[in-house]
Amino acid sequence: MTPPPARSAEQRKRDTLHRLEHDVDAWVATAGADGGAPYLVPLSFLWDGAALLVATPAASPTGRNLAATGTTRVGIGPTRDVVMIEGTVETLESAELAEGEAELFAGRTGFDPRGLKTRYLYFRIRPQRVQAWREADELDGRDLMRDGKWLVAD
Amino acid sequence: MTPPPARSAEQRKRDTLHRLEHDVDAWVATAGADGGAPYLVPLSFLWDGAALLVATPAASPTGRNLAATGTTRVGIGPTRDVVMIEGTVETLESAELAEGEAELFAGRTGFDPRGLKTRYLYFRIRPQRVQAWREADELDGRDLMRDGKWLVAD
Repeated sequence: MTPPPARSAEQRKRDTLHRLEHDVDAWVATAGADGGAPYLVPLSFLWDGAALLVATPAASPTGRNLAATGTTRVGIGPTRDVVMIEGTVETLESAELAEGEAELFAGRTGFDPRGLKTRYLYFRIRPQRVQAWREADELDGRDLMRDGKWLVAD
Repeated sequence: MTPPPARSAEQRKRDTLHRLEHDVDAWVATAGADGGAPYLVPLSFLWDGAALLVATPAASPTGRNLAATGTTRVGIGPTRDVVMIEGTVETLESAELAEGEAELFAGRTGFDPRGLKTRYLYFRIRPQRVQAWREADELDGRDLMRDGKWLVAD
């Protein structure tokens, strides 16, 4: 079976935006502020066209790491069709979200942390670097965004 | 639609071992030794019954992090049926593998780093903590291994 040819940068960006708009879950990697122990969990996200919004307990390893370090690397998609995002992180209480944003988040993810006994925080992840690849032949040309700027126009 | 009931620890262990024996890819999270920047990539693995073997370029962020910190957190499976593994990491040249192990790795992953121009290292990940859950109702009871010991017998 001949594998499909490597996608163009334009196609990868289209596929990446489609995944950001339609996927629900992401793998969120963080590191501890003290000593840098790696952590990883799947979390649901809402994409607003410019950033991913996630929510996790304030006291969880991911919550503590995101709040303390302000940085994350996120993987979306199956392992052979990935979007990788490095982003800066803003920590938000639910009261600090934009109007209607908590409802959008709950609708998208099926999960509303407001009013739970456990204290949750929201985290807004702004992509600084975005990569997309499927198999080894797509490792070349995987960078789609650097320093927060898309390398190809819409 | 009624979700299936939460699995027993015994069932989760069986499902976890099945996934380790049959899945090919894992999400491998690491942290930089200096400053602890989080990193994340999908890598193929070979499970030998006690440890995962992965290979990645010595000069890649993951290769450097694994060699420098000796620790990783690995996610296997889709985001709603995960196995999470925290492990200690041993760094190995191909010549340091057991006899026949490099061939087993190549057969399992479809990828043989020996003889490539880029210098690869192998990394043996020994699980110290293993967790498995599908949805929120399975967060309780997710710990299957602590301190390198399974909490339920075979």
